[in-house]
Amino acid sequence: MNEELRAAVDAARVRVAALHAELPRWGLVVWTAGNVSERVRAGGDGTDDLLVIKPSGVTYDELTPEAMVVCDLDGELVEGTGAPSSDTAAHAYVYRHLPEVGGVVHTHSTYATAWAVRGEPVPCVLTMMADEFGGDIPVGPFALIGDDSIGRGIVETLRGSRSPAVLMRGHGPFTIGPDARAAVKAAVMCEEVARTVHVARQLGETVPIAQGDIDSLYARYQGVYGQQDHTERRDA
Amino acid sequence: MNEELRAAVDAARVRVAALHAELPRWGLVVWTAGNVSERVRAGGDGTDDLLVIKPSGVTYDELTPEAMVVCDLDGELVEGTGAPSSDTAAHAYVYRHLPEVGGVVHTHSTYATAWAVRGEPVPCVLTMMADEFGGDIPVGPFALIGDDSIGRGIVETLRGSRSPAVLMRGHGPFTIGPDARAAVKAAVMCEEVARTVHVARQLGETVPIAQGDIDSLYARYQGVYGQQDHTERRDA
Amino acid sequence: MNEELRAAVDAARVRVAALHAELPRWGLVVWTAGNVSERVRAGGDGTDDLLVIKPSGVTYDELTPEAMVVCDLDGELVEGTGAPSSDTAAHAYVYRHLPEVGGVVHTHSTYATAWAVRGEPVPCVLTMMADEFGGDIPVGPFALIGDDSIGRGIVETLRGSRSPAVLMRGHGPFTIGPDARAAVKAAVMCEEVARTVHVARQLGETVPIAQGDIDSLYARYQGVYGQQDHTERRDA
Amino acid sequence: MNEELRAAVDAARVRVAALHAELPRWGLVVWTAGNVSERVRAGGDGTDDLLVIKPSGVTYDELTPEAMVVCDLDGELVEGTGAPSSDTAAHAYVYRHLPEVGGVVHTHSTYATAWAVRGEPVPCVLTMMADEFGGDIPVGPFALIGDDSIGRGIVETLRGSRSPAVLMRGHGPFTIGPDARAAVKAAVMCEEVARTVHVARQLGETVPIAQGDIDSLYARYQGVYGQQDHTERRDA
Repeated sequence: MNEELRAAVDAARVRVAALHAELPRWGLVVWTAGNVSERVRAGGDGTDDLLVIKPSGVTYDELTPEAMVVCDLDGELVEGTGAPSSDTAAHAYVYRHLPEVGGVVHTHSTYATAWAVRGEPVPCVLTMMADEFGGDIPVGPFALIGDDSIGRGIVETLRGSRSPAVLMRGHGPFTIGPDARAAVKAAVMCEEVARTVHVARQLGETVPIAQGDIDSLYARYQGVYGQQDHTERRDA
Repeated sequence: MNEELRAAVDAARVRVAALHAELPRWGLVVWTAGNVSERVRAGGDGTDDLLVIKPSGVTYDELTPEAMVVCDLDGELVEGTGAPSSDTAAHAYVYRHLPEVGGVVHTHSTYATAWAVRGEPVPCVLTMMADEFGGDIPVGPFALIGDDSIGRGIVETLRGSRSPAVLMRGHGPFTIGPDARAAVKAAVMCEEVARTVHVARQLGETVPIAQGDIDSLYARYQGVYGQQDHTERRDA
Repeated sequence: MNEELRAAVDAARVRVAALHAELPRWGLVVWTAGNVSERVRAGGDGTDDLLVIKPSGVTYDELTPEAMVVCDLDGELVEGTGAPSSDTAAHAYVYRHLPEVGGVVHTHSTYATAWAVRGEPVPCVLTMMADEFGGDIPVGPFALIGDDSIGRGIVETLRGSRSPAVLMRGHGPFTIGPDARAAVKAAVMCEEVARTVHVARQLGETVPIAQGDIDSLYARYQGVYGQQDHTERRDA
Repeated sequence: MNEELRAAVDAARVRVAALHAELPRWGLVVWTAGNVSERVRAGGDGTDDLLVIKPSGVTYDELTPEAMVVCDLDGELVEGTGAPSSDTAAHAYVYRHLPEVGGVVHTHSTYATAWAVRGEPVPCVLTMMADEFGGDIPVGPFALIGDDSIGRGIVETLRGSRSPAVLMRGHGPFTIGPDARAAVKAAVMCEEVARTVHVARQLGETVPIAQGDIDSLYARYQGVYGQQDHTERRDA
């Protein structure tokens, strides 16, 4: 690992460790569930890129930068004393097949997972969904851990979609973003809208937002929201 | 900015920054969503008044008094290093058209937003709703961001209403008050009653409070509740 | 106030202030809502007893022992710089008419209030309800603030009942106990069972516990649970 | 008590006290409800084993290692100044009859208890349920406290089951594990899946996972998840 890559990996360790704290903070995970990863670009065509991810089965209290593990994009351990998260293969598959993606997050957050259990997309009935997701949050296939099924399901569902979130059937949400922070934000917003639409539906029908309105909300939000030196774009 | 106005703006920065912490504290917002503003009166007919508001896309951990931004009542930036909240135009519209309003709050709090998605007012079935809202919490129109539609929808719904809260259809609640603290309280109470009435409805019908009882509860509460030197009026 | 009473009042101030923190801790209140009081026995026939209660419209962050107010059992202010809670008359009525009661708590906790809105008792379908409440949690009448209606409704419902909690219709729960701590515990347990039974009911019918089983659970729990020098009696 | 057993008991006191903090942290208990115990093996055939458990009716703030109590496997007090938890007999019964069990936890967590009130097993519709529970979470009989009924109900339901959790009818969940930490994790995951499946069911039917898929998920998870020197096995 050259000096530049070394520095980039170390910076990603700090970011990824800190971002894990957002998952319990916003009620997205319990115990050791959930994981955040970030791509570290090595230059070139991306085949030498690395990813920094949470070690398997470690509690959120123990997630220091040093505890993070580093893998290549085949999911093989490059650096770290612990085994990588058991979802590493899915993260790595996403990075291999979606070169624009710089961060991936997985949780079992309650409301998003409930939609995933029913295999129902979250319908776009909220202006904040139009802003963030540009439409419905789609459902991906039921897939078992152990091979590329989960990664493939994520990529096939999200490639070409505006949504940075997919609800993997019977499993839970995966979210992506240009970096780990954006993917964490998408995980937080995914649960927020999954919960709000669930609650709205409990007492009656919900009214979809017209496609033209969705399009203009999405265009505006992705273009102008937030500070210029900031990846944040949510209304605030 | 003369010395008096300078001091008033600085005091409002401190108050508005501190009040933002109440939004995540009571579970009304996630990530960078939501915003609080306060009017700073410049004397005269109000056209020179200013407003202090949250910058766009900044997390709740970063909301110091210095991070707040100051705008005029056309929503133009007067002071501050960040872009103002993307909802600033709506806040400014309210201040321009409702001169008695000194504070505005916007959230996407779950239960209030769920009623807004269905376009259903929250019915007045609780004594605390009679106290605080003097009747149902009304629904405002569906409106897109980008012009005066949201502000106009808020003003048309709340002008002449006892309720300090409006549920903007498909979007979420906006609340007003004589100052920012009162508007924050209205946002907290709006979510509280939206949640309680939602839960009540889940298992059966709810019984409306008779109009005469609502009127007497509202009159008493707005008149005598709380300490004399205090804006608080909730039973405690 | 003689020295003994002085000391008893001051000790009650400390207890009542500290117990208020339990209300937001267990999610029973928002903003300034809710109140805890404790009787201070003056000896004699009880007509000279005092009560220590929260001042009106003050936030939970400000509730020091010094901030508490002291009233006589007609609800008149005896000591304190703030106005007493607007529910003081109801507390005082309870102390006047139920001499065994040493503590009273009022909240608008979500699930208990939802049952109160529908005017439905919480049915005794849980062993912990049999332990704590000895049966259903009863509903009291709809009553307006301003005279003795609320206090009378509480007393008429709870006199002779095993339950330390009453759901005042369209309003919320009031709980009682031998001291303020026991009344706070009853408020916490009331919300807990109101929520659990609500959730159980959402997906189907619930099975009542047989009266004989309720009776034996209640007898055991009230007799033997907890440490001997302790008012706590919940399984732990 | 010989030196080795002394050291083992003291280490268990530290672990059990610390693990109690996980119950309120993950929202499984209110007030003094709930309890964690751990077996201390004395060698031999297990009849001299001890258990460390929470004292009865003590708040979570007071749970220091010194406050824990030690009992034999008949539930008789061996060491400690407080009375043992009123559920000690049930814990002791489990340790006597399931020699592989090293930890037991009891809570009244809301969603798990709601399924228990209806007497309905939580169906295995989530990959994380297949991982953790290897199938449905089963329901045990309605049983009164005071004799061996509760312990017997737990043992009869869990003996030979993959599930480390049983929902005791009209009462709440009990969980087991090779040590107290594993039993606490099972209590946390039990509530998590009970809540998620409840929410999924509120808006429609849920799709069971095929038995073959459950079997392969369970086999993989119990075999390879987590760090080698760690009891944790949840995806992370």
